[in-house]
Amino acid sequence: MLRPWTHQLAVLHMQKRTEMFDTPSKRALVPFISVESTLSLIFTLGFDRCLFEITDAIAEAFTRWNDFETIPRVASHSSMGVIELMPTTDGTDYSFKYVNGHPINASRGLQTVAAFGVLASVETGYPKLIAEMTLLTAMRTAAMSALATRTLARKDSHIAAIIGNGAQSEFQIRALATVCGIKKFQLYDIDTNATRRCIKNLSNHKLCLTACSSTEEAVLGADVITTCTADKAYQTILTDNLIGKGVHVNAIGGDCPGKTELHRDVLLRSDIFVEYAPQTRLEGEIQQLDEDFPVTEIWQVLTGSADGRKSPGQITVFDGVGFAIEDFAALRWLEQNLGNKSQAQNLDLIADPNESKDLYGMICRFMSRAKNIEPI
Amino acid sequence: MLRPWTHQLAVLHMQKRTEMFDTPSKRALVPFISVESTLSLIFTLGFDRCLFEITDAIAEAFTRWNDFETIPRVASHSSMGVIELMPTTDGTDYSFKYVNGHPINASRGLQTVAAFGVLASVETGYPKLIAEMTLLTAMRTAAMSALATRTLARKDSHIAAIIGNGAQSEFQIRALATVCGIKKFQLYDIDTNATRRCIKNLSNHKLCLTACSSTEEAVLGADVITTCTADKAYQTILTDNLIGKGVHVNAIGGDCPGKTELHRDVLLRSDIFVEYAPQTRLEGEIQQLDEDFPVTEIWQVLTGSADGRKSPGQITVFDGVGFAIEDFAALRWLEQNLGNKSQAQNLDLIADPNESKDLYGMICRFMSRAKNIEPI
Repeated sequence: MLRPWTHQLAVLHMQKRTEMFDTPSKRALVPFISVESTLSLIFTLGFDRCLFEITDAIAEAFTRWNDFETIPRVASHSSMGVIELMPTTDGTDYSFKYVNGHPINASRGLQTVAAFGVLASVETGYPKLIAEMTLLTAMRTAAMSALATRTLARKDSHIAAIIGNGAQSEFQIRALATVCGIKKFQLYDIDTNATRRCIKNLSNHKLCLTACSSTEEAVLGADVITTCTADKAYQTILTDNLIGKGVHVNAIGGDCPGKTELHRDVLLRSDIFVEYAPQTRLEGEIQQLDEDFPVTEIWQVLTGSADGRKSPGQITVFDGVGFAIEDFAALRWLEQNLGNKSQAQNLDLIADPNESKDLYGMICRFMSRAKNIEPI
Repeated sequence: MLRPWTHQLAVLHMQKRTEMFDTPSKRALVPFISVESTLSLIFTLGFDRCLFEITDAIAEAFTRWNDFETIPRVASHSSMGVIELMPTTDGTDYSFKYVNGHPINASRGLQTVAAFGVLASVETGYPKLIAEMTLLTAMRTAAMSALATRTLARKDSHIAAIIGNGAQSEFQIRALATVCGIKKFQLYDIDTNATRRCIKNLSNHKLCLTACSSTEEAVLGADVITTCTADKAYQTILTDNLIGKGVHVNAIGGDCPGKTELHRDVLLRSDIFVEYAPQTRLEGEIQQLDEDFPVTEIWQVLTGSADGRKSPGQITVFDGVGFAIEDFAALRWLEQNLGNKSQAQNLDLIADPNESKDLYGMICRFMSRAKNIEPI
């Protein structure tokens, strides 16, 4: 006869865990990297080093692009936003990220983009790591822009415009500063408080940060222009007349169907670089163009199989939407930096009976032991 | 200047968490239902009640099928096995399950099928629950067979054959017993130890369990036949001559491309019922048939929009592969049974700065406080 759960039992239960329970093997316990663990890791390594290493991790993964399974992310859209799963594998490790995009969340005191992810072993199918990825996504997104800028912008670029000064802006600036050596930033946002906060947050980093009163002012003299606005709509943040010769544009904010930032004419004058064309054609700026409009995947530039910038006067656009391989690289980086995993908490995630085919027996043993130690 | 992480800092850090850290809101903490929590819940409610309630939860979800977004699962195949993501949403909640299928795992002391899942809010995009799903999948798979049997088998069915006595077999038997009132089971497995273990595990449940020496012997006189073998290959567990009039078959083990259990001729003589045809045509027994071979989705029978069994002599086959809506129903059931969530552990999963757009500021505050409390 089964009896109701009692507090006393719960206490005994915790004490006698190993007796009551099939002993979980190491593989049954999955390390969890919390928000706090990620913050601790950033503190330990330093933010610049994190951004640098993640940039290199993405570059490394991109240079072996053909090792990876690539599919467009699996999106579930609602009137409120989108929830996406982004899986990939290189045949050895498998990763996926869960990420939402809810522009309305900011007005509710929630994150527009929140995420977590998993790294798993292809050989066993068992997860190896579960991690917060709100912070990690912000870092890898900035690292990706920095990688695109390092690869495509003029080498003498030294001024960047940042249009949209929301949650992603400081990450973009820190990454452009540390990876590309850019120290002058011209900022604009329709919300002046956002710009003020961004400048305040970055006040200790020997950067020259200027608040501008319009996009026109912000892009004046800029070698690199990054747009990272959050509105889920067709916007025209950059019109054709704003883009001068030789500029590199990171168009980051247009990242789902119906959400763009650049005027079509800007795209038609530019050479366009993307992460993964089938996904970007659905979600990026190029959703405004014909399906067969030529674009170059950045991994092709990194491996030397396609040209990047060919002349100082050329306009290059990185139409960034975020791709699973970047998350894979970020999770692998995280795993490598955990060392003895002391910063992780072990989750009892995988049922692990003492005999592998005896899953039901695990329930039997738990039940009979729980009954035996139950107080009268 | 950033200094290396020290143990002392770690201790202080834990003590001063609320000071050092932006206080996480309730939504930033996601309840985690571990393997042990699931075992505790089974102990509290009783296994029969769990199976009964999950069966009803699946039936409830299936009767409002058109509320759901349905896509085939997203599978990544390797020579070792498969890793799958199974998302769905009813517009209010969103769920996905991560699940592997590695037949080779049993020989390594690991689970062939291990799983975990997430329930999230469509409105905010935030996860509401992370749960182990190895046990929960075993329960919902058995509950689904029981639902199919309750819906399609002859009402006077009282003997069931269970072909394949691996990890899923006891779950199938308990669910058929509690949901369909079947008390006589005839068991066969090529591995006699598996059959022996299954019978031993179920010895306390007033069931009549007979070990058979062949499939022929096991199916003799059976009203319901469940095949739940694990080999990843085209197998012929049931040949045409073994299937008599009026039988209901649950074909559970054939659940991915290249993995089937029934001879094609059995299917051609039967009325075939599936969970979600586009997925089953890829993964189920019907991958052996033409793409347009008529099948009925079980939700249609449950809502009265299609016929189930029409005559006592008819052969009905439930070609079960497992579908995301079953996991959704199981996760919703789990959420409802957690009550005050005292059986759950809260994970610090979602970065939650005090001001929602100030994600970077969260890092700044953590860094400056961590430096301040660092010992000299």
